[in-house]
Amino acid sequence: MERNKQKIINDPVFGFIRIPGNFIFELIEHPFFQRLNRIKQLGLSYYVFPGAQHTRFQHTLGAMHLITEAIKVLHEKGVAISPEEVEATQIAILLHDIGHGPFSHALESSIVNIPHETISLRFFEYFNRMFDGRLATAMAVFNDTYEKHFLHQLVSGQLDVDRLDYLRRDSFYTGVTEGSIGSARIIKMLNVKDDNLVVDVKGIYSIEMFLVARRMMYWQVYLHKTAIVAENMLIKILERARELTKRGEKLFGTEALCYFLNNQITSAEFNNNDDILPKYAQLDDNDIIVSIKAWSNHNDKVLSWLSSGLINRKLLKIEITPEPTDKNYLRSLLNNIVKKTGISEEDASRYLVFSDSISSKLYSKSDDQINILHKDGTVTDISDTSDMFKLPTMQKTTEKFFVCYPRM
Amino acid sequence: MERNKQKIINDPVFGFIRIPGNFIFELIEHPFFQRLNRIKQLGLSYYVFPGAQHTRFQHTLGAMHLITEAIKVLHEKGVAISPEEVEATQIAILLHDIGHGPFSHALESSIVNIPHETISLRFFEYFNRMFDGRLATAMAVFNDTYEKHFLHQLVSGQLDVDRLDYLRRDSFYTGVTEGSIGSARIIKMLNVKDDNLVVDVKGIYSIEMFLVARRMMYWQVYLHKTAIVAENMLIKILERARELTKRGEKLFGTEALCYFLNNQITSAEFNNNDDILPKYAQLDDNDIIVSIKAWSNHNDKVLSWLSSGLINRKLLKIEITPEPTDKNYLRSLLNNIVKKTGISEEDASRYLVFSDSISSKLYSKSDDQINILHKDGTVTDISDTSDMFKLPTMQKTTEKFFVCYPRM
Amino acid sequence: MERNKQKIINDPVFGFIRIPGNFIFELIEHPFFQRLNRIKQLGLSYYVFPGAQHTRFQHTLGAMHLITEAIKVLHEKGVAISPEEVEATQIAILLHDIGHGPFSHALESSIVNIPHETISLRFFEYFNRMFDGRLATAMAVFNDTYEKHFLHQLVSGQLDVDRLDYLRRDSFYTGVTEGSIGSARIIKMLNVKDDNLVVDVKGIYSIEMFLVARRMMYWQVYLHKTAIVAENMLIKILERARELTKRGEKLFGTEALCYFLNNQITSAEFNNNDDILPKYAQLDDNDIIVSIKAWSNHNDKVLSWLSSGLINRKLLKIEITPEPTDKNYLRSLLNNIVKKTGISEEDASRYLVFSDSISSKLYSKSDDQINILHKDGTVTDISDTSDMFKLPTMQKTTEKFFVCYPRM
Amino acid sequence: MERNKQKIINDPVFGFIRIPGNFIFELIEHPFFQRLNRIKQLGLSYYVFPGAQHTRFQHTLGAMHLITEAIKVLHEKGVAISPEEVEATQIAILLHDIGHGPFSHALESSIVNIPHETISLRFFEYFNRMFDGRLATAMAVFNDTYEKHFLHQLVSGQLDVDRLDYLRRDSFYTGVTEGSIGSARIIKMLNVKDDNLVVDVKGIYSIEMFLVARRMMYWQVYLHKTAIVAENMLIKILERARELTKRGEKLFGTEALCYFLNNQITSAEFNNNDDILPKYAQLDDNDIIVSIKAWSNHNDKVLSWLSSGLINRKLLKIEITPEPTDKNYLRSLLNNIVKKTGISEEDASRYLVFSDSISSKLYSKSDDQINILHKDGTVTDISDTSDMFKLPTMQKTTEKFFVCYPRM
Repeated sequence: MERNKQKIINDPVFGFIRIPGNFIFELIEHPFFQRLNRIKQLGLSYYVFPGAQHTRFQHTLGAMHLITEAIKVLHEKGVAISPEEVEATQIAILLHDIGHGPFSHALESSIVNIPHETISLRFFEYFNRMFDGRLATAMAVFNDTYEKHFLHQLVSGQLDVDRLDYLRRDSFYTGVTEGSIGSARIIKMLNVKDDNLVVDVKGIYSIEMFLVARRMMYWQVYLHKTAIVAENMLIKILERARELTKRGEKLFGTEALCYFLNNQITSAEFNNNDDILPKYAQLDDNDIIVSIKAWSNHNDKVLSWLSSGLINRKLLKIEITPEPTDKNYLRSLLNNIVKKTGISEEDASRYLVFSDSISSKLYSKSDDQINILHKDGTVTDISDTSDMFKLPTMQKTTEKFFVCYPRM
Repeated sequence: MERNKQKIINDPVFGFIRIPGNFIFELIEHPFFQRLNRIKQLGLSYYVFPGAQHTRFQHTLGAMHLITEAIKVLHEKGVAISPEEVEATQIAILLHDIGHGPFSHALESSIVNIPHETISLRFFEYFNRMFDGRLATAMAVFNDTYEKHFLHQLVSGQLDVDRLDYLRRDSFYTGVTEGSIGSARIIKMLNVKDDNLVVDVKGIYSIEMFLVARRMMYWQVYLHKTAIVAENMLIKILERARELTKRGEKLFGTEALCYFLNNQITSAEFNNNDDILPKYAQLDDNDIIVSIKAWSNHNDKVLSWLSSGLINRKLLKIEITPEPTDKNYLRSLLNNIVKKTGISEEDASRYLVFSDSISSKLYSKSDDQINILHKDGTVTDISDTSDMFKLPTMQKTTEKFFVCYPRM
Repeated sequence: MERNKQKIINDPVFGFIRIPGNFIFELIEHPFFQRLNRIKQLGLSYYVFPGAQHTRFQHTLGAMHLITEAIKVLHEKGVAISPEEVEATQIAILLHDIGHGPFSHALESSIVNIPHETISLRFFEYFNRMFDGRLATAMAVFNDTYEKHFLHQLVSGQLDVDRLDYLRRDSFYTGVTEGSIGSARIIKMLNVKDDNLVVDVKGIYSIEMFLVARRMMYWQVYLHKTAIVAENMLIKILERARELTKRGEKLFGTEALCYFLNNQITSAEFNNNDDILPKYAQLDDNDIIVSIKAWSNHNDKVLSWLSSGLINRKLLKIEITPEPTDKNYLRSLLNNIVKKTGISEEDASRYLVFSDSISSKLYSKSDDQINILHKDGTVTDISDTSDMFKLPTMQKTTEKFFVCYPRM
Repeated sequence: MERNKQKIINDPVFGFIRIPGNFIFELIEHPFFQRLNRIKQLGLSYYVFPGAQHTRFQHTLGAMHLITEAIKVLHEKGVAISPEEVEATQIAILLHDIGHGPFSHALESSIVNIPHETISLRFFEYFNRMFDGRLATAMAVFNDTYEKHFLHQLVSGQLDVDRLDYLRRDSFYTGVTEGSIGSARIIKMLNVKDDNLVVDVKGIYSIEMFLVARRMMYWQVYLHKTAIVAENMLIKILERARELTKRGEKLFGTEALCYFLNNQITSAEFNNNDDILPKYAQLDDNDIIVSIKAWSNHNDKVLSWLSSGLINRKLLKIEITPEPTDKNYLRSLLNNIVKKTGISEEDASRYLVFSDSISSKLYSKSDDQINILHKDGTVTDISDTSDMFKLPTMQKTTEKFFVCYPRM
């Protein structure tokens, strides 16, 4: 008889999370998945919110918990979902983030220029081969090629369990408690109409709160200026490290990190070369942090200056403005740095003085919609339904601009 | 030596609440204040949210706790507030709700047609006489005649501690947890500029959340249709009881309730007749509930039918619509009731079949504003500052309509 | 088709509570059950903990929620429980407290000298007749005459869901948060062995915490001296009211309360006279409170003095000692009161100066045990298993003594 | 004018934590302190409790918050504490854990055989030199050489804020919520008598709960068998790495880690050699994790087998027994491993098959006591006061034994 591996895991956010079966337990036990234990969900946000140390592992288990709850609710409302589809949907959410590397967005913007969704798909394929096709349906759900579209929407959509978990979890761990969304209430209100995920009309205020809380979390947490400057410093460090490597310098680093510093891997190569995935799966937050600590003493001034600044919390100064940074102002900042540090203008403008923009959109009808199911069976989009959102301006992207430069 | 009466009170919402001094402790111990222990904050909302049994006593202590925190924050930011002003402001908030009778709004709409604020003022005056003028400053703060306007704003304004406490507390006790506002964060962001309460610009997202959470609580809790129908039945019951009393019928009731059934007290009488306040202070939720239970068996069909319906949770049916109730529909409902019950058309239309409207406004600049203090020292209104609220529509009143009638 | 009455109720403690079916919903909607909405779980404890306004209604729904969870866990561990048994067990817990009157223990000690369990049984019988025998199994589970003993243990035993809910709920509402027990973890550890409820050995520390938290709640909350003095004053008030009634005085009161003041009902009469149950079901906290308010002005000095003292929070002084109250001390207190008030010695010693004892036992093996299930399948009692409780002294009853008397 | 660096930090456990002044802010900003952001409070416990990712940085700030609260309470009770003493006590708690290395206990048992308290003292001295003696009083408080002994007891004693924070925080992050202690209530009950920290007698139940919760956290969390096996594997890995290094093998590692692998530093050397502290301050969790990942592929079978086992969650099997492991059983396990793996008996017995014991004591009077202050001014020890602890057995050490070996 097969040993029953069913397990219950303590979770500070949801209390207990039950692993729904042996196969899923096996996936969770796999080293590629355990790696998520070593990747923080919010990257460098702990520079601002010291509590934000939670990992993608926890987030993924939380999202799996919520998808199981959501499926139960839909089931009770008479939506047909087979046991195989249940497992497939659970696996789809379990692996949806597995492609994330350490400091995901920083890496994608520097040394691994491949979207993490693409890499997640490589992991799906790897496990599917390993388990003789058992992940086929999960992959179809993930890729939205499965016949029941609403299963994909649970995994990835305007109201997916990914967001339901991360908003609540990030709120919990950062201590920004007013961002806590009513995930339980929203899930109770889910329904399916014409193969689309919908929300019973009673849930409209919860949806409004969800959208506004999301907006709040963006500006208060995800786009906090200290988090932005730290992430940008990390990107600059990795870019500089690659540049030095290209020039032939040998930098300290773990084998896996050095591999990605030395090789600019394309999506195609990632697909075709079976050696790359295991190397990628070696990477986690620790590889990046130890390198930055080591590089703090490197003799390249740009690299060591940025690295020691980041590790010792001596961050660049950042200014955020509603308008793009003035060119003349940027130039004067640059001149000042060049004069004071002796760093070349080219290096200074690439690594030390830079401007960019950040943006957040509350809701866009053109994306996957949030559909409201009325008592008469009709379905409308939230932006046509809520008097709070019945406004073109609410769907406008808010854009802000920033400039970073050394404090001198 | 005076016995030190300073006390700490357990509060499920804030943990511990410290009574700030002996005089305030004496006020709290007074029977007129203790009465608030017997008046539920949310009236009949426990028909929908069984947890909503919390009282005005708890709310008032919570608001006093928050005002003490707010004063501490302002003090640290250099705002001058003398110990006397601190006490006055604490007393002002402590007594701000003391005029509330049982099921406040129901009473104000039926047998005690005096705004509770007016009655609160009578209590202030009563205590002020009793304590030889020690409440003079508190009254001035309450009435906004004190020289420091911002103290009044803490007690009563768009962002007063009254709202900060009740939104959070009502959210807590109803279990509508996503309505929980970040009162601590908002308080940390308070400041004073030109004698006006302002919010540091960093707090703008918290203010947005506060306003949207308030809106949500209105529609999800305060204006929940079951709460509305229950409250309206209570109003009809009290109106009928008064009508029968006028006709000379002797209804069961406590002495105090009978007094107010028998006498239509005006604001002027309340002012001039010293006997009225102590009678009013006899009233609490219990007086109303026992009467309704007794009236369930009265031989007046309207009174007994409404009373037994309310006490036994057989409520009128309520329909909520975006448009005013159609006259013809209302008439057909009425005819049906008259035919089936034999109750006169006049009685039926006054007590059993009725329509009305409810409304909620997110924010209005014309009321006391929410002022945002920018880093350059300028102050703007939230509705001109937040891109979420920078819209005339957001300030529009949302109005809904309802009709109630017996299920038959 | 039957209207689906399945409902979800917001609960501040457990989030959402689902009513498990139409029949149970019908029971909950019945006026006899709705009455629990008007009976506070902790009686007069709000004199100490103003947040403790929660009702037996909430507690009962919470316990039903936990029993449903517990049954789910047992089911997953392979314990056979039929759908009929599930419903019966849910009903048994739903109605287990329905016999409670207002201020239950005070009434049982004064004007309704019948244990609330006996009265609960009358309600079971009433509903069973009303619903043509559908409660037969529920009654058997409640009475422990059903063949599966462990179902009764879930409802009433050392580790029943009654305690699991009330400890957690009382902790929540009083704000004594450290008394919060890990109900979810304990429930996950439940199992059945030889028809007895047992706890998997992994749960031993949670059980220890449960027992110690219970002890703490007893001394910190349930036996708080202010709560004791208030409850004893209430008993004395009701005893005096009955005495005066017997003497022929007509006291203010609702019809139901007057009935019980006038008639000393025995268990047998309660059984045989069908009029009594509906009268009893008329009683709730409100009847008691309005009477005490009215009696504050009665011309009997003992009644009015105690009543106004209780309602206005001018409580008797209470002293708690490890030894029984000294007779001479008691006498000197009594003499002093008699001299100062002119109240007769007999009345004073019966109503104003009195002593008694309170006690709490941590755990007793002679009661229904807490059984620990070891990995080898053996079962031992917690007091033989836990090294913390492996001590005769831990099972000793702790007794304390108190004396109450007027502050003069 | 000095820039006001006073800051408020979000903390999921306590809401907001205020940094009490510029000097303390400067200490917190120092790289040596920031390093605590990269050291998990509970080491490898996230193998069992994935939420337990919180850091010593958070814990330290939390403890500082609590000591500030405690000082406020003592101040209000009339205990004299000067502003200088307040700062000194805050600094003492802030730096009390700064000597912790990554996976503290594992390191102390392998490659840095110096108690972390000793190393903390080195950091105190370093900062004291750096800031011209400003930490002298803080050091005296930390070392218990300061004239006011109770200040030291706040930092380190049976009821210090260290424990108050970590029990509550570890409970929060592991999700073992019933371990949450009432830190706020305990702090409110603190007092000082004859220069000793005491607890007002009202707090006795909170103290009982605190002691039992601590015991529960020990067995449920700190000594969880999976955490024990993981930590022991880490010790074995580090010991093996040192052994191989001694033999002349060059292992992958960061500069700082290699330094400590190569050099067995004594307490004396740590004292006398100024180069060691900065090297030690380079170490954090990341150094260890990347090494273990790299060592997974090392050609030494013992090192790679243990390393890949730990990183990939293929842990040794662990058995826990109330009696010491039977010698014959241990031998048979060993023989089996030697036979199956070909690893030498010596290596196998040192690194792969080993037994040891763990123990936890509830309370010991011989340590710094928990003193209860009675209303008459007398002071007694908790173990003489609480009827729960008035038992020699409660103070007995509970010892358990374990054996670890590879699953084969």
